[in-house]
Amino acid sequence: MNFTAEQIAAYTGGTVDGDKDAVVTTFSKIEQAAEGSICFLSNPKYEHYIYGTRASVVLVGKDFVPKEPVGATLVRVDNVYETVAKLLSLYESMKPKEQGGVSDKAFVAASASIGEGCAIGPFVVIGENVKIGRGTRIHANAVIEDNAQVGEDCTIYANVTIYHDCVIGNRVVLHAGTVIGADGFGFAPTPEGYEKIPQIGIVTIEDDVEIGANSCVDRSTMGSTIVHKGVKLDNLVQIAHNVEVGANTVMSSQTGVAGSAKVGEWCMFGGQVGIAGHITVGDRTHVGAQAGVPGGNLARKGGAVLLGTPAIDHKVFTRQAAAAKNLPELVQEVQRLKKEIEELKQAKNG
Amino acid sequence: MNFTAEQIAAYTGGTVDGDKDAVVTTFSKIEQAAEGSICFLSNPKYEHYIYGTRASVVLVGKDFVPKEPVGATLVRVDNVYETVAKLLSLYESMKPKEQGGVSDKAFVAASASIGEGCAIGPFVVIGENVKIGRGTRIHANAVIEDNAQVGEDCTIYANVTIYHDCVIGNRVVLHAGTVIGADGFGFAPTPEGYEKIPQIGIVTIEDDVEIGANSCVDRSTMGSTIVHKGVKLDNLVQIAHNVEVGANTVMSSQTGVAGSAKVGEWCMFGGQVGIAGHITVGDRTHVGAQAGVPGGNLARKGGAVLLGTPAIDHKVFTRQAAAAKNLPELVQEVQRLKKEIEELKQAKNG
Amino acid sequence: MNFTAEQIAAYTGGTVDGDKDAVVTTFSKIEQAAEGSICFLSNPKYEHYIYGTRASVVLVGKDFVPKEPVGATLVRVDNVYETVAKLLSLYESMKPKEQGGVSDKAFVAASASIGEGCAIGPFVVIGENVKIGRGTRIHANAVIEDNAQVGEDCTIYANVTIYHDCVIGNRVVLHAGTVIGADGFGFAPTPEGYEKIPQIGIVTIEDDVEIGANSCVDRSTMGSTIVHKGVKLDNLVQIAHNVEVGANTVMSSQTGVAGSAKVGEWCMFGGQVGIAGHITVGDRTHVGAQAGVPGGNLARKGGAVLLGTPAIDHKVFTRQAAAAKNLPELVQEVQRLKKEIEELKQAKNG
Repeated sequence: MNFTAEQIAAYTGGTVDGDKDAVVTTFSKIEQAAEGSICFLSNPKYEHYIYGTRASVVLVGKDFVPKEPVGATLVRVDNVYETVAKLLSLYESMKPKEQGGVSDKAFVAASASIGEGCAIGPFVVIGENVKIGRGTRIHANAVIEDNAQVGEDCTIYANVTIYHDCVIGNRVVLHAGTVIGADGFGFAPTPEGYEKIPQIGIVTIEDDVEIGANSCVDRSTMGSTIVHKGVKLDNLVQIAHNVEVGANTVMSSQTGVAGSAKVGEWCMFGGQVGIAGHITVGDRTHVGAQAGVPGGNLARKGGAVLLGTPAIDHKVFTRQAAAAKNLPELVQEVQRLKKEIEELKQAKNG
Repeated sequence: MNFTAEQIAAYTGGTVDGDKDAVVTTFSKIEQAAEGSICFLSNPKYEHYIYGTRASVVLVGKDFVPKEPVGATLVRVDNVYETVAKLLSLYESMKPKEQGGVSDKAFVAASASIGEGCAIGPFVVIGENVKIGRGTRIHANAVIEDNAQVGEDCTIYANVTIYHDCVIGNRVVLHAGTVIGADGFGFAPTPEGYEKIPQIGIVTIEDDVEIGANSCVDRSTMGSTIVHKGVKLDNLVQIAHNVEVGANTVMSSQTGVAGSAKVGEWCMFGGQVGIAGHITVGDRTHVGAQAGVPGGNLARKGGAVLLGTPAIDHKVFTRQAAAAKNLPELVQEVQRLKKEIEELKQAKNG
Repeated sequence: MNFTAEQIAAYTGGTVDGDKDAVVTTFSKIEQAAEGSICFLSNPKYEHYIYGTRASVVLVGKDFVPKEPVGATLVRVDNVYETVAKLLSLYESMKPKEQGGVSDKAFVAASASIGEGCAIGPFVVIGENVKIGRGTRIHANAVIEDNAQVGEDCTIYANVTIYHDCVIGNRVVLHAGTVIGADGFGFAPTPEGYEKIPQIGIVTIEDDVEIGANSCVDRSTMGSTIVHKGVKLDNLVQIAHNVEVGANTVMSSQTGVAGSAKVGEWCMFGGQVGIAGHITVGDRTHVGAQAGVPGGNLARKGGAVLLGTPAIDHKVFTRQAAAAKNLPELVQEVQRLKKEIEELKQAKNG
């Protein structure tokens, strides 16, 4: 990579503010930027770094007004974050592609079909009747069990497990250690112990889904657990059996969705969120980190911003939290009032 | 599978309400049921689906009274959930068994012993002196380290790791990615940093335990971490070193039990529960999702239903939560009273 | 192992109180100790066990004063926990070492370099240009991707994944299933869905770090996610992209640190703690189990002990929690006062 500020501005639809011939060869974080690198400023918390940065080029918003002189050349763009994504994608696309082909150390069942241009790493296991779409890359030691299907241009990282019969769409990314299709957690109590309820359903992961490392999506009891198009799940996320996650919903790390919950589209969940079983969470619901959603109309109707356990409207939560903060003082206030009333009563009776 | 309503009723001890010759060939969820399928109604939340279902047969409770006409044939049984489990198990048992045998791509140490009828997948590693009981199935890329023992009729899914010397009972199911016997988290602080405390104990998993995907049970410092008979752990559960989990206890996903805690029998923990280290949780304790149990007499004596962090009796929790909800109003009420007292005092002195 | 109390005292700088010729051959927990074993008493909660123990030797603190007669020989030391660590390390060092060498079932790329004395298990994958330092042990089915570096005397357990280009220091221990270097969770919203922001950075794990099973450390967007020297992470911990964890910080199981957070040195986090993104947590901050740290001055300055969500000073938390406990009574008290004021007003007006 070797670009001038002018070339970058042209590629990103931005404008140059400074030396249009400034050259960059790599990316850097604004707080650690070295000469010859391009960095970006999006979060205002990091603004102070721009005044001392050694980066040659900094991407900033169209409306950014420096409070002090900036040594670097600025490239001004409409949406900094999107532009960074675009530039990084360009950078990635310029990398030489790894060689494809099926490793002679992989195990591919005779009845499996592997599309053109796939790359299958060593010690990958592809079970009977598995179908892998063209251009899909499967890293070392991943296991795709019998009758599963994986679409085109997917990336399945190392040590992933996809259980039998599950269906994965196109352009899906599954990070290392993720498990798709383990049995849902279903047991019927008997006096002697719990009896397993066989989980005869599957998991369906639609197109353009990305799932982080060591996450789990369980197969359904019957039918299918469904993760719809464009969903992004972070690491260590749990999606239980019979759940449905709506398109373009995003869940941060260590979030858990309990069995048979139905989550809408375009939701955003912070880290360590819990969603109760058998509830509905409407479209565009935002849930703050560590909140626990037990259900209810507010969650169901969509568009809410929820905080706390049990999760409530964020404004109500903030008001309650403020009151809770002053609770010890309130207790003292009530004691003072009690004493004053006592005095008033004695005065009256005295 | 191809059964009539009459055959199902005979097998499950139920009664037919409708066409006894209705034929089903598959299972379905009540909300997505197609013709020729059997579904079930257990949770009343789903009752409205029964009036429009296209399923041919619906399993319902003996006492179910439809509020509207139902097109499907009903099979009435004592315990719907148990009956579903029974039918699904029958269905599973009718599936053709996968072929057994040890894959020639597995690595089995010369000193290991493999029981009759085992199925060992490709790239499985069986260490020195390992003993695998008969009928056990080990999926691809699982690793059983030196001197570990696995009992009969177990299922060890892909990419599971069992560390050296650990002992697994009979009919145990370990889902993909689960790790049994990693070192307990023990370090002694020194001025220069933490010094590792070797964890020379093991993990013992007793008969009929099932553990979900990507869960962890750590080996003990000395002696054994113990998961007793019939315990069911969901995905991403953490059992720390020196813990003992009593028989038939059930823990939902992302629950964590800290070191040296002792959990009783027949407990039920919701998702994301935390149990503090070195505490005792008595038999039949129920802990609500996201609750944190720090110890105490209530947890110790057993039979409690606990909510919140720190977890308290669920009725007390509910009462406190209701009061907290109205806290902003309480603050205003106290302000009003204060003003009235002020007026009373001025009236008296005026 | 076969030691007398006298030998143990000599090795640990302790003093014998009882039979100096008492012989021990193994370790045990104080509550399960058998004859011929050595156990220890550090946590006072376990003191009652010492009066009935069948252990031959018990390690106790220098100042321990038995309340009843103790049958076992006591070895008195300055720091019980450190001494146990020392003895267990001695015990471990006496075990016969496993044979080294590279398994002929491993896959090692031609351009990779493997140091002297390494042990590489079956079905391990070592990618192109990977460098493994001498004395490092890599267990079965672990995957080290292209251009990654692993230092000397590390232990990489089974089914670990290290993504391309990541850098691991010396004496690092990574437990089974852990994933180093998966993509950070970065997506830019567009009207059609989320666009992936390529994560072109790496992960750096410095010397003497230990990471538990199934944990995740994500690669940074640019530059490096850094886990500094001596850090200890438990199982199922999440370290997001661009995070920096200071030296000798300890995090218990299921803790999550969100993107771009900067955690100081010598911090201690309990289980299931959440740290918000883009915040600073100062040196020696202690965070109680399940707490959620949103940022703020108290967390930033270091040395604080934090509890709750949002996390606050532990003393303030305790005071608020005590008040919250009595909240239902406070509500009743306010109702009583209201009535009394009403009566006073009526008396005045009557």
